Amino acid sequence: MTVFKEFQSHWTPIINNYLEKHLASEVDDKKIGKIMAYSVMAGGKRLRPLLFLSTLYTLGKKIGEQEVRIACGIELIHTYSLIHDDLPAMDNDNYRRGKLTSHKKWGEAEAILAGDALLPMGIQWIAEGSKSSQLVTIITRAVGPNGMVGGQYLDIDSTNNASVAGNAKFINRMEWLKTGCLIEGSVKMAAVYAGADSEQKDKLVAFAKDFGRSYQIYDDLVDVVETSEEAGKETHKDKEEGKNNTLTLLGIDQSRKELTNLIDHAKANLTGLNGQLLASFLDLYKKVL
Amino acid sequence: MTVFKEFQSHWTPIINNYLEKHLASEVDDKKIGKIMAYSVMAGGKRLRPLLFLSTLYTLGKKIGEQEVRIACGIELIHTYSLIHDDLPAMDNDNYRRGKLTSHKKWGEAEAILAGDALLPMGIQWIAEGSKSSQLVTIITRAVGPNGMVGGQYLDIDSTNNASVAGNAKFINRMEWLKTGCLIEGSVKMAAVYAGADSEQKDKLVAFAKDFGRSYQIYDDLVDVVETSEEAGKETHKDKEEGKNNTLTLLGIDQSRKELTNLIDHAKANLTGLNGQLLASFLDLYKKVL
Repeated sequence: MTVFKEFQSHWTPIINNYLEKHLASEVDDKKIGKIMAYSVMAGGKRLRPLLFLSTLYTLGKKIGEQEVRIACGIELIHTYSLIHDDLPAMDNDNYRRGKLTSHKKWGEAEAILAGDALLPMGIQWIAEGSKSSQLVTIITRAVGPNGMVGGQYLDIDSTNNASVAGNAKFINRMEWLKTGCLIEGSVKMAAVYAGADSEQKDKLVAFAKDFGRSYQIYDDLVDVVETSEEAGKETHKDKEEGKNNTLTLLGIDQSRKELTNLIDHAKANLTGLNGQLLASFLDLYKKVL
Repeated sequence: MTVFKEFQSHWTPIINNYLEKHLASEVDDKKIGKIMAYSVMAGGKRLRPLLFLSTLYTLGKKIGEQEVRIACGIELIHTYSLIHDDLPAMDNDNYRRGKLTSHKKWGEAEAILAGDALLPMGIQWIAEGSKSSQLVTIITRAVGPNGMVGGQYLDIDSTNNASVAGNAKFINRMEWLKTGCLIEGSVKMAAVYAGADSEQKDKLVAFAKDFGRSYQIYDDLVDVVETSEEAGKETHKDKEEGKNNTLTLLGIDQSRKELTNLIDHAKANLTGLNGQLLASFLDLYKKVL
């Protein structure tokens, strides 16, 4: 059993229980609460909250209820982004995590509003759990126009745009903003919250950058390597829809090589830290290699 | 010249300049920046930022660049809410503030993303301007599922629903959440930021509650009293679309009476404060009385 697996099996149920309990108790209107919880409780891997908590662990910070609140706030924000990405005006997806997407299940206005409710509530949980305006600055920058939403905009703007199909710089930037920024933000918040010194912080942020970049390549590979049953969503869609990503740029073999290199690089960044736990997160990617 | 008019003519250009300059300099991608700025710079009254700054003034707090950053953060958030409310899946409006709505001008995905970018950036400005996680808690609660978005959800959920048409309690609650919460939040943030004592804070929050409630009745009256040219958006739409609001419940005359009562009540709450400036905000409503 790897270190990641142990950490995951301990903390995932705690995260899931917190999310379920607090969405039920902290949302006054039960109907919108149910729509929000439908997507949040659809069985994600809780990768970003686990990364946040693992970084605290790496830095020797004790994890209690306040830290779990911050971690779960990150998951609310991640879920909002999935709901909006799936909308008819965006990727127009019917399935996510093996279930109907929010707009397919509840209607389009309801899905937009469930996302619009999860984003500020996620930031609220981070602010209340941390009592730190610095963490709020990190998370809001990570998901704003110079982060996640900016990446989604580039994606929408470039879909079926032949002029960017071979532009590696553009594609790297788009993928980094879309996926990497929130992953980096999760690690950066933990480093600031735990009071890491600047050397520790630099190493962790460098690790997070590689991890975030690898995650996107991994996710693109899942689209072609896995059947939709395994992935819980429709696969083989990216090419069909004219999406430009690292995979369409490099092909499967070269993407796998790039992913292998990134994993080695990510691990090297952890030298000198108690980095065994974080390094073991990278084992997740083995299934597409 | 009333006190409000003086305050407004001094601070509105400062707010507008700050918004224009910082949206241009702080959004990396010029295309999404332009889409965001299109709606932000469409000529709103800047009521919420002015209320925030006026409350600081009332409490004797000096206004500098950091305070203007917080005020402008509130306006970014307000603008996001307008863009999403206008979407085809929501109110499906073609005009706002005399211009095409964001989705009509730029496309639906672009409008959703411009809103999704303005919300976290607004919270970021508030966090950076105030360095206070408490202000972040106030604003995120005000616009989340138990605030503005919750009200928008009730509105969508109840449109063309005859069973709530005569339910004053439901309509009051919906209108309060939709409009009142962000107005109350603007005043509450100023009270906390300026270090108001608990008596001052209670009076200001009571004023904000009445002001927020009156604003919604005022806004509904604008829909029937003004021509669309005066209002800068399509009017006479609420009844046509089966919207339930105080006006459809009480009729025009009774709504005007309710508004007059609320104005008196709001003014009474300011007794004992240096409340002349805030009281003069209520003069705004005279044009529909």
